Amino acid sequence: MDFRLTHTDSRSNARAGLITTDHGEIATPVFMPVGTAGTVKAVHIRDVDEDVKARIILGNTYHLYLRPGLDILREAGGLHKFNGWKKPILTDSGGYQVYSLTDRRKMKEEGVVFQSHIDGSKHMFSPERVMDIQRIIGADIIMAFDECTPYPCDYNYAVKSMELTHRWLDRCIARFNETEDLYGYRQTLFPIVQGSVYKDLRIRSAEKIASCNAGGNAIGGLAVGEPVETMYEFTELVCSILPHDKPRYLMGVGTPVNILEGISQGVDMFDCVMPTRNGRNGMIFTSQGIINLKNEKWKADFSPLDPEGTSFVDSAYSRAYVRHLFVAGEILGPMIASQHNIAFYLWLVDEARRKIEAGTFSTWKDEMVKRLGQRI
Amino acid sequence: MDFRLTHTDSRSNARAGLITTDHGEIATPVFMPVGTAGTVKAVHIRDVDEDVKARIILGNTYHLYLRPGLDILREAGGLHKFNGWKKPILTDSGGYQVYSLTDRRKMKEEGVVFQSHIDGSKHMFSPERVMDIQRIIGADIIMAFDECTPYPCDYNYAVKSMELTHRWLDRCIARFNETEDLYGYRQTLFPIVQGSVYKDLRIRSAEKIASCNAGGNAIGGLAVGEPVETMYEFTELVCSILPHDKPRYLMGVGTPVNILEGISQGVDMFDCVMPTRNGRNGMIFTSQGIINLKNEKWKADFSPLDPEGTSFVDSAYSRAYVRHLFVAGEILGPMIASQHNIAFYLWLVDEARRKIEAGTFSTWKDEMVKRLGQRI
Repeated sequence: MDFRLTHTDSRSNARAGLITTDHGEIATPVFMPVGTAGTVKAVHIRDVDEDVKARIILGNTYHLYLRPGLDILREAGGLHKFNGWKKPILTDSGGYQVYSLTDRRKMKEEGVVFQSHIDGSKHMFSPERVMDIQRIIGADIIMAFDECTPYPCDYNYAVKSMELTHRWLDRCIARFNETEDLYGYRQTLFPIVQGSVYKDLRIRSAEKIASCNAGGNAIGGLAVGEPVETMYEFTELVCSILPHDKPRYLMGVGTPVNILEGISQGVDMFDCVMPTRNGRNGMIFTSQGIINLKNEKWKADFSPLDPEGTSFVDSAYSRAYVRHLFVAGEILGPMIASQHNIAFYLWLVDEARRKIEAGTFSTWKDEMVKRLGQRI
Repeated sequence: MDFRLTHTDSRSNARAGLITTDHGEIATPVFMPVGTAGTVKAVHIRDVDEDVKARIILGNTYHLYLRPGLDILREAGGLHKFNGWKKPILTDSGGYQVYSLTDRRKMKEEGVVFQSHIDGSKHMFSPERVMDIQRIIGADIIMAFDECTPYPCDYNYAVKSMELTHRWLDRCIARFNETEDLYGYRQTLFPIVQGSVYKDLRIRSAEKIASCNAGGNAIGGLAVGEPVETMYEFTELVCSILPHDKPRYLMGVGTPVNILEGISQGVDMFDCVMPTRNGRNGMIFTSQGIINLKNEKWKADFSPLDPEGTSFVDSAYSRAYVRHLFVAGEILGPMIASQHNIAFYLWLVDEARRKIEAGTFSTWKDEMVKRLGQRI
């Protein structure tokens, strides 16, 4: 995997770049729609590609490991062959499930034993195993196995957790280096910075991660409930330490405003379930603000869903019609809102890129931030 | 509305024709996907048009009346404007709900009082009101208000019900004739034959309906639980009485085999929820037979969903992948299966049309009937 910075903003840390993978190029900054179980929920894969114009999607190791399972994925020739997505795929490592499934897992030095949320069966995720699993899934970008600490998290726990994540990282790197790309295309490992919301820990962790000289680097353990200003502060701090010439990935972030702030701080890659999850609940993001489609006020609004939107759904359907679909519980409602939202997120990062290239990112960002968060 | 017969089969009563409406032509035989609440469930309207190549869709008067309601539909300029479907629309009359919502309605000579399944509110559907409602929905083809009798149904009830349906029909015609097309395009009324499974009643009813000289005629009260041979017998009987030069619509039918038999008996138009409803449950229809996608046997079948299918989903997704989607409860599963199934139904009636034109319908039909019903 190669990364080339093409533009840097003079008034912020924003940058535009180009990641090259064996499944094609990824212009950055980029948003990566989440395809937990190998599907970006409620959107046809053709549309994720051609209509949304996504450049890379995510898969979740924990979920894909349980269903369809590694035998099937290996026999298919990897996730790309299995789901028909031809562009790059990034898989998370299960580290987020260490955080989100606290009742269903036990942590040890060796790794984590998960109890399946499907049938209660137990599964050991060690750093080595997680490398092997992601090799088999066939991700272009593989994430290190980490513990995503909760918020709040006391200092002593945060230290121990970070040190464990670092030891796990060394084991991940060793295993990754002694194993081969499985399907004839390059796979690249990204380590993850942890350290909760403690400056000294974040600095230590960022320095450790920077020292690995990986193809790209991630910031984990944010967007887990801390104040948004704290998230911005630590993103900026960590970005200042991570290598300038490698892509930086802020995991699990976030709202459109969060993404613009992250770009401003030097982040290149983002993922979040928000556009699809909130879409399924009738919330859409637009360049004018946030719309709750279930709201009575759209009942007789026959104007296009989003006159400035780039997806076909934005002009094909009216707000009144999509509201009706949500009120009537029709599947087409979530389908439309999900597709709109991920197309909007892609538009947003593309527009940011264009503004960075034009040297107008910061003023544009300040204007957008005012509008994007408001409810209309 | 005009209808022109273009071909008749010499070895059966099958015919090919062309219905002309102000929203375009409908080649027959035709299958009409059901869009109960103004959406063909789980399929984008663009895809119902361009991918499935549907020529006409259905809307349900009872459902659309309750949601989004007549005020919204009138303000939108009718259902076409509301949902963006530009080809013809047929609306049922609520007569099916007289049958299916027996616990929620009271019948009188005047009409039927329904209790809303949404909020329990009461609504009077008289023949006159149902004409007005369908005018407002903006259907190209409007169905008469009838009682769809259950099966089994004793003779005395069947006589009374049929006579009521005939009196209601006279009121429908009177109201329809004294009201105007609402949105600048022609609306056409279809009367409905009833009479349960009694020959004398079906003959009486078919003669009554034939005497109305309507733009098209429908056969109701079948596919409600009677043996399939009974359905075929009565379809044939009624078709022999209904005008030859007007389209014949067999309501609520059916499986692919039912449709081919119906075509063979002289039916031109069909609708059924089966392709979308069964699709949502993981069942797809193909030219080789019926597939239950949840079945373990497709787990590692990486061949296309339907190698002979005409929808983009048939080659974009494998059986193993779609099985995974159903097992994991992912929305994309129902989306794919629904779109496949209605595309298959459209392929089936198109192929029937081509065979009628080529003079080979009957031999083709006999071969297809053997295959279509088998489980693979």
